[in-house]
Formats: sequence, structure tokens, C-alpha cells
Amino acid sequence: MLGNFSYHNPTKLYFGDQALGYLNEELPKYGETVQLIYGGGSIKKSGLYDEILAILKQNGKTVVEDAGVMPNPTVEKLREGVRLARENKVDFLLAVGGGSCCDYAKAVSVSVHCDDDPWDKYYIRFEEPDCEIVPVGCVLTMAGTGSEMNGGAVITNHEQKLKIGHVFSDEVMPKFSILNPKYTMTLPKRQMVAGIYDIFNHICEQYFSGEDDNTSDYLAEALMKSVVHSSLIAVKNPEDYEARSNIMWTATWALNTLISRGKSTDWMVHMIGQSVGAYTDATHGMTLAAVSLPYYRMIMPYGLAKFKRFATEVWGVSADGKTDEQVAEEGLRALEGWMKQLGVTLSIGELGATEEMLEGIAEGTIILDGGYKTLTKEEVIQVLRESL
Amino acid sequence: MLGNFSYHNPTKLYFGDQALGYLNEELPKYGETVQLIYGGGSIKKSGLYDEILAILKQNGKTVVEDAGVMPNPTVEKLREGVRLARENKVDFLLAVGGGSCCDYAKAVSVSVHCDDDPWDKYYIRFEEPDCEIVPVGCVLTMAGTGSEMNGGAVITNHEQKLKIGHVFSDEVMPKFSILNPKYTMTLPKRQMVAGIYDIFNHICEQYFSGEDDNTSDYLAEALMKSVVHSSLIAVKNPEDYEARSNIMWTATWALNTLISRGKSTDWMVHMIGQSVGAYTDATHGMTLAAVSLPYYRMIMPYGLAKFKRFATEVWGVSADGKTDEQVAEEGLRALEGWMKQLGVTLSIGELGATEEMLEGIAEGTIILDGGYKTLTKEEVIQVLRESL
Repeated sequence: MLGNFSYHNPTKLYFGDQALGYLNEELPKYGETVQLIYGGGSIKKSGLYDEILAILKQNGKTVVEDAGVMPNPTVEKLREGVRLARENKVDFLLAVGGGSCCDYAKAVSVSVHCDDDPWDKYYIRFEEPDCEIVPVGCVLTMAGTGSEMNGGAVITNHEQKLKIGHVFSDEVMPKFSILNPKYTMTLPKRQMVAGIYDIFNHICEQYFSGEDDNTSDYLAEALMKSVVHSSLIAVKNPEDYEARSNIMWTATWALNTLISRGKSTDWMVHMIGQSVGAYTDATHGMTLAAVSLPYYRMIMPYGLAKFKRFATEVWGVSADGKTDEQVAEEGLRALEGWMKQLGVTLSIGELGATEEMLEGIAEGTIILDGGYKTLTKEEVIQVLRESL
Repeated sequence: MLGNFSYHNPTKLYFGDQALGYLNEELPKYGETVQLIYGGGSIKKSGLYDEILAILKQNGKTVVEDAGVMPNPTVEKLREGVRLARENKVDFLLAVGGGSCCDYAKAVSVSVHCDDDPWDKYYIRFEEPDCEIVPVGCVLTMAGTGSEMNGGAVITNHEQKLKIGHVFSDEVMPKFSILNPKYTMTLPKRQMVAGIYDIFNHICEQYFSGEDDNTSDYLAEALMKSVVHSSLIAVKNPEDYEARSNIMWTATWALNTLISRGKSTDWMVHMIGQSVGAYTDATHGMTLAAVSLPYYRMIMPYGLAKFKRFATEVWGVSADGKTDEQVAEEGLRALEGWMKQLGVTLSIGELGATEEMLEGIAEGTIILDGGYKTLTKEEVIQVLRESL
């Protein structure tokens, strides 16, 4: 653990099957008009919508409905949400849903009182908010993105074929998040496993970088082991509350800045996967799953010591009588085996990507240099082609 | 991970060898009069006192000196600090030192605007503060207690022969803490290893309890492995910055509430150790070290599965061909071996405890029931006697 860094994460978490009741403690802290943000209406089917509306009414709130947030929130939807917030002089944004709703709420929060177009300001010029930020709260219904305790907000621009994340500072983090593992049980299994792989990959992105001795790497291994362990229970029995609660908690800690403290990070799987998402509109976690193995097999020789450690510490691979390469490869095979048990996609072809798209997807991939190897555009294409 | 819980830790951490500069960002947020809290003057020898005083002056602060905080802060000193804060209408408490100074600052912070005697209110009646809380900031010079990112404040009453900790809510946590691993290098080796054992035992207290499947236990194992790994480097070369920085970071995360989320906890080693401290005034970490092994050997049969896991996951003990008891015992032998490598005390006799004190120490031990076995007073005496 070298270098200088800070850590500040003021989001308050309420966890458990009774967590929703704490909305009654939090809502009085904020103004009267609440923009209620949700997706395609699954919360109406589950009854959560009615429960939350009742709590909002009990607390004397005026509710501004903002439904229809899509799995990959678009810039058009963002502009519409901002307009809605302005017209109704909204005091508080309550996101009910998965990472898409939380991300979207944060993107709205920094744009309501900002004159510039949010896409240009935050996703092209990567500026920081210099206006009043509307506070956000989350009621989470899907475990995966970690958006409930971070400043990240990914927005997709279909016209420009770009899907870009901005990680805002701690002021933009949700003031509180309500995490009830039971809510995540209403999801289809495909969404559950996509979320699980998203969690795992968030950890990998922060783990596969750097060569120093770092407490964060130990914590990363712990989160990986916990999510792998619980995922194998949940994939057999999605109703297992204990497994679903461990998965939900690891999701939060996998991406709330803790495990990246004092170290460099990679994030290339996300960069490639997001570009695949911009072309295919596929589920985020599935895009990550599809490009991971060819990417890690490509960079493994450049970060061999860490890949060996990954094999022995996370997957219990024995190093006896083997070369470092053999141990490292065995770790990636163990990862592959687990991904198959989960049933995540290993091919971008299955997600709708075609040979013709590869050039464009590679063009839309932001190349970062925190990992063990800085890819060329040709290498991005190679990763994509191996996943077709 | 079962049950309902919340998590909120708003302390901002600045970590690294350049961290002190961030005082300039934090101080302007608070009022003019700063009570500067420190211990026996080692910060004067190291030059840190002058550096901090210069920063306080640059920021236009009026400084109220509050020196002489002892390793186990007393209730008399606490009352004196409260008087000082009241007389000078102090706006901010800046603790520079180890856990003692941070703990003391928090105890002062909840008492300045409170009419009741702080000992009676917080340490006998365990009430929560119902008065204005004076904000606290920390500049940490010793890694161990975790006081820099929690609400804990241990105070000793020599007259009553009681050393008691009150864990206050998040409003009492430091607003910020400055963690520069270099400051911890000025400590004598004995203090360093006492701090290391304190860290390790904080983790054990939260780990050796409960039988559910919990992400927190994976995180606990990660912190244990990291601190063991770095301690063996630091004990050979206390100047190793990387090892000292990992130790400092694990100390913070070992006791900032994270690894106890969603699970029960034990804390009996602290309860017994603190009572030993009330009688002997010995260094906190050494009292914990002295009573740990007899305590864990006593409770092991009641929490065998966890002690087996401790052996295999933390110490890499192989379970092949062994009974659970053998594996668990091997784990405790590995712990004992590490403690000997560190050079911590394994005997309360060495700390000044005598046979005549045992009855009183046991009497002063608060018996908690979160661990694998609720001790009787006779069993506390047995643990103490085995450590004489």
C-alpha cells in the first residue's frame, strides 16, 4: 500500500428484510417534492411500488413519477428526467430499481441545476459538477453494479454509439440506500447471474493491476471468495436468503472505492464490455462475461505473479510442482468453469455482436493504461474476435 | 449474512506520507478555537507538533493546549479536558497521537455541552449524548485501536478500578483522520507490536462468533492475513514503509464497524484485557495478547467449526487426515507462534498482575454473551490464572 489517497464514503446503508421501514427516518430530512425513479414496472408487479408510494404519502411528499428507466439509461431519457425535475422543482430523487435507476438518478442529480447539456459536460468533457446537486436515495432491487454506494453513473448515447461512465465525487453518492435481499429474488435468473458476474468483474478490475503489497488485494480476494461461494448456492436455489444477502453485500463493497485504495486499477473489461453494450444494448454483466476470458488470457503473461496469486488464493489451485504459467492458467480455467456453472454468456456473438461491428466496438473502447498491459486497438479487436 | 443492520461511517481518511497537508482543507470547515490534544510530548521530539502548530496558525486558529493524555486516559483527565473546552469555548478538538488521544477527544466531545458527569452518564449508565457534540479530527501516530474511524472511547477510572469503552454513534466519529504511516515509525518496537496485536485481536473478536455464512468473515480473514504478512516484515524492519502502511490501513478497517455487519461478535478478550489494564495500567495490546490464548483454548470446543476455518483460511493449516479438533488446535498453535515472533507478552504476570488481583480483575470484567460460550466468573479467573 503505497502512494497517497483519501477515502470518504458517506452513504448510509440499511440492510435486511426490514430495511424499507428506514425510509420513514430518511425522508423527513429532505424537501417535499420527490421524483420517483423506476424502470419497466416490475416494482408494480412485486408490490414494492405501492409500499413505497404509501410511505411517501405518509411523509407528506408530493410525488413526481419518472418511470421507464431502461437497463442502459440513454442520454435522451436523462434529458427528459432533468426536464421533469426542473418543471416540478424536485427536492429529492428516489431511485427504486437496479444500477440503471441509481446511475440515472445520479446523472439527473448533477444536471438539474446545470445549464450545460449533461452529455457534453459529464461524458465528453468529464467535468465535475459546479452547481447545486439534488440529493439521491436508492431502494435497490438488483445486486451487481454497486451504484448504491458510489458516485458512478453510466449513460448510453445510441446516436454516437457510446456508453460511458463518469465516477462523480462523494457529494453525488446516494445519501442512503436500502438493501433488502428479498427484492433481488424477483429477478429472472439470467439477470441474477449477470449481476453476480458484474460484481466479480468489478473486483477483478481493481485486483489485476499493480505489483505492490496491498491490503486492498487481500480484501478483493475475500470478496471474490464470498461471492463465488454464495453464487453456487444461489444458482441452485435463487430463494436462498442468506446467499442472496451475501451477494448483495459483496456487490456494494466490490465497488464503493474501498478495494481500490492505495493501488492502481485496470477497468479494460468494462471499457470493452461497455462498447459492446453500446452496439448491442446487451445486459451489462453479460458483456463483461463475454470479453473477460480472452482479455485475461491476453494480459496474463504481463501480470503473471498476480494471476498466480489469483489461482492459489481465490480458487485454491495448488502450486506444487507447477510453473507459474501453469498455476495462472489453472486459475483462469477455474474462473471459466465457474462462469459456466453460473450460465453467463461467453460470447459477444450471442449478445448480437457481428464481425462487421468489431471495428466500431474497438473504436468506441476507451483504452486505459492502469492494467498489466496497455492494449492497442488491434488487440481489442483480437479480444472481441475471440469472443465472437 | 442474516438479520437487519445499518452501516454509516462518514469519517474522511487522508492516507500517505503527504496526508498532513489536507489539514489545510479541513480546518477552514470548523470554528476558530481548536483544542490541541496530545500525549507525553513525543510529537514535540518528532517535530510533528511544530508542523501542526504552523498549520493551525496559518489557518488563523486560536490554539488551546491540552497535553498529557496518558496511554489509558483517566476520568480525571477527561473532566479536566472538558473544563478546558468549556472555559475556552472550544469549536474543534484536534487529537494528535494514538488511540488514547482519539478516544479521549471523543469522550470530551460528547461532554463539553453536557451537564451530567461524563463517567456516570456514558460509562456507568451507557446513555447516548443528548447535547451538542464538538467535532473531532485526528492525526494518528500509532496504528492499532482503530479509533480514527469509529465512535469508540475507552476511559479508565482508577479509583473504581474500571476501564470501560463506550461505542458512540456515527455523529461522534472523527470528521477526518490523517494517517501517515511514517509517524508510526517513531514508536518503540514494543508499542508497534502491541498495536499489531490489538489490530489482530479486534478482528478475532468479530470473527469468533456466529455460525451463519457471512461475507464479513471473509473480510476478517483478509485483514488477518494482511496484518500477519506485514507484521513479519515490520518486526524485522520497522522502517519498511509499505509494511507499516498496510498495518495502519488494516488497523482502521479492523474496527470501523465493517467486519461486524450482519453478525454477532464476542469481545471477551477485550473485556478481560481491559480489566487487567485497570489493575496494572499495562499497554492495551499487551493485556489482550496475555489473555488471548487461554481464552481461545477454553472456548474452542464450543465454536469448533470457526476455529477450524481460522486454522485453514488464516494460517494455511492443511486439514488432510486430521480431526477438526486437531486442525483447530494447530491454528491456535500457529497464532501462538506468530505472537512469539512478534514478541508480545503471553503472561499477565509480566504486566504486573498477581494472584491476589485475580478476583478483582474477574469482578471488573464485563461478561458479554455474543461469543461461542458465555463465561462464568470462575472461568474468567481460570483464564487469568493460566496467564499468570
